[in-house]
Amino acid sequence: MTNKQWRLKARPFGEPTSDTWEYTETDMPSIKDGQMLVKVEYISLDPAMRGWLNDSKSYIEPVQIGDVMRAGTVGKVVESKHDKFAVGDYVCGYNGVQSYAVSDGTGLHKVDPKLAPLSYYLGVLGMPGMTGYFGLLKSGEPKEGETVVVSGAAGAVGGLVGQIARIKGCRVVGIAGGKEKCEFLVNELGFDAAIDYKNENVKKALRQTCPKGVDVFFDNVGGDILDDVLTQINLRARIVICGAISQYNNTTPVKGPSNYLSLLVNRARMEGIVVFDNVKEYPTAMKDIAGWIQSGEMKVKDHVVTGIETFPDTLMMLFKGENFGKLVLKVEAN
Amino acid sequence: MTNKQWRLKARPFGEPTSDTWEYTETDMPSIKDGQMLVKVEYISLDPAMRGWLNDSKSYIEPVQIGDVMRAGTVGKVVESKHDKFAVGDYVCGYNGVQSYAVSDGTGLHKVDPKLAPLSYYLGVLGMPGMTGYFGLLKSGEPKEGETVVVSGAAGAVGGLVGQIARIKGCRVVGIAGGKEKCEFLVNELGFDAAIDYKNENVKKALRQTCPKGVDVFFDNVGGDILDDVLTQINLRARIVICGAISQYNNTTPVKGPSNYLSLLVNRARMEGIVVFDNVKEYPTAMKDIAGWIQSGEMKVKDHVVTGIETFPDTLMMLFKGENFGKLVLKVEAN
Repeated sequence: MTNKQWRLKARPFGEPTSDTWEYTETDMPSIKDGQMLVKVEYISLDPAMRGWLNDSKSYIEPVQIGDVMRAGTVGKVVESKHDKFAVGDYVCGYNGVQSYAVSDGTGLHKVDPKLAPLSYYLGVLGMPGMTGYFGLLKSGEPKEGETVVVSGAAGAVGGLVGQIARIKGCRVVGIAGGKEKCEFLVNELGFDAAIDYKNENVKKALRQTCPKGVDVFFDNVGGDILDDVLTQINLRARIVICGAISQYNNTTPVKGPSNYLSLLVNRARMEGIVVFDNVKEYPTAMKDIAGWIQSGEMKVKDHVVTGIETFPDTLMMLFKGENFGKLVLKVEAN
Repeated sequence: MTNKQWRLKARPFGEPTSDTWEYTETDMPSIKDGQMLVKVEYISLDPAMRGWLNDSKSYIEPVQIGDVMRAGTVGKVVESKHDKFAVGDYVCGYNGVQSYAVSDGTGLHKVDPKLAPLSYYLGVLGMPGMTGYFGLLKSGEPKEGETVVVSGAAGAVGGLVGQIARIKGCRVVGIAGGKEKCEFLVNELGFDAAIDYKNENVKKALRQTCPKGVDVFFDNVGGDILDDVLTQINLRARIVICGAISQYNNTTPVKGPSNYLSLLVNRARMEGIVVFDNVKEYPTAMKDIAGWIQSGEMKVKDHVVTGIETFPDTLMMLFKGENFGKLVLKVEAN
């Protein structure tokens, strides 16, 4: 038995390629006192991972060349010399893109597989869930009756943001790629409308679907979509900058929002968010989200791909818009 | 005796040119009951005027073709059939680029020529003063010990913003064009440092002059300077978008800030302001500013050009960076 790992081989310029990653199989690690061995079952794939590959100052250290790629994971403790974690416990944390991880427990927390499917702890009850919940409610500050637009709406964060906005009494319009995703947003997640950016003129569609203008824009995408929404914002609108997936693999400079002076005309604000700032309040968010799921007010869609071997290609699904719901890598078939 | 007027002849594409304006001399207007005749003495020239020439939705109606150009003015009542304004009163308001204006008093307020030079009512005690005061204090929210950077620092708004930030106990760095302006900022206005964007690498100079990073950026300029400052902002920085004079005469799309994702990394915000939102609180601001001038804590620099005939060329001084202090057009030599 060996430990399967994906390591960063070289920093990508533009899109990650086969040169970016190195697949290694190493001997099973042994643990010392105060450590445990975790069998990783699910690996979270998130747009933010692209940023961690760049050697630049950010909200978190870059992954170093040769290191196992950082990733959120959920797994099972299979050996333990740690007094707080026992064999059989399920744990969530940044154990990386590998099938087994040695941990002293730092940054890990236990999760209950009976309360929710394990993959949920990487999605609605994990980092994307916390990102959407706090980003929308604290920075977006949606009020009942307002219009909330979200980009990347069929992704992990976007789907949750739109549903929370609906629950809060807002008109919700999602922007996503393709007819299937757009129908899902309206028919399954209860969005008021959806815009298919691949087949529609976004600016025109915004005018049609947001007749009272846009009060809150939760942006996961950046680029032209951000510029289009900026033309439709209301007085004192709030734009939450959660990400800019359209720009992460650029080999040219990021496209800044040409229409940013709409902020001036409308006395609006654009604010960046990072999920970790809210760590103390995660329990509140998890309780709310779990409650909405239980009551049926919120639906969850995971997109699970099996086989750690597929990691490089599966990660690219995010940037190609091929994931439909929260993208999760299941380490191996049962 | 005739009324000299500058009218909008054609909307400019890019820089206003001789085709933009029409000079007219019309008969002296007569007044009806409830009206007064104001002899305009000073005309305010402001970057915002460029925006009023565009036929697009904004915070104020565009000037219409054929109309006298809108402008803030201060002048003297020379005839009156209005029960609240008497001959000899000095009044401030949007009387336009003309030597005489008929008014029913709407939007006019009386000013006292004994309390301050008349031109001050178009500068520190007028629209630019209110813009800087509320923009900095309400949107910038500077705290003692923080670093505040202001662009267009030798202009009407920038000079005031930097001085208020200094009075509030901040480290103040101004960005301006040319050695003379930069020396003035440090030696006369008490800025801690100044960056000459025409002769220095702004990003490098920011690192040197803002060793603790940038907490507040008050931006009048946009373009590359905004992008440079975005690379140096601190966690939870506030960027106040007051204007973007570098972009107003573009014939290509506005240059959006490529580095806007620094807002995300730093959980920072960028917010637009429009002065008119604070109209009820103008008296507070005027009292504060007048007090600082009286105590010597704040210095005022006006740049007065004489002769209404020069209006088109004098206005262009703003966009060429040729004004040094608040630019005011004196209608005629005494």
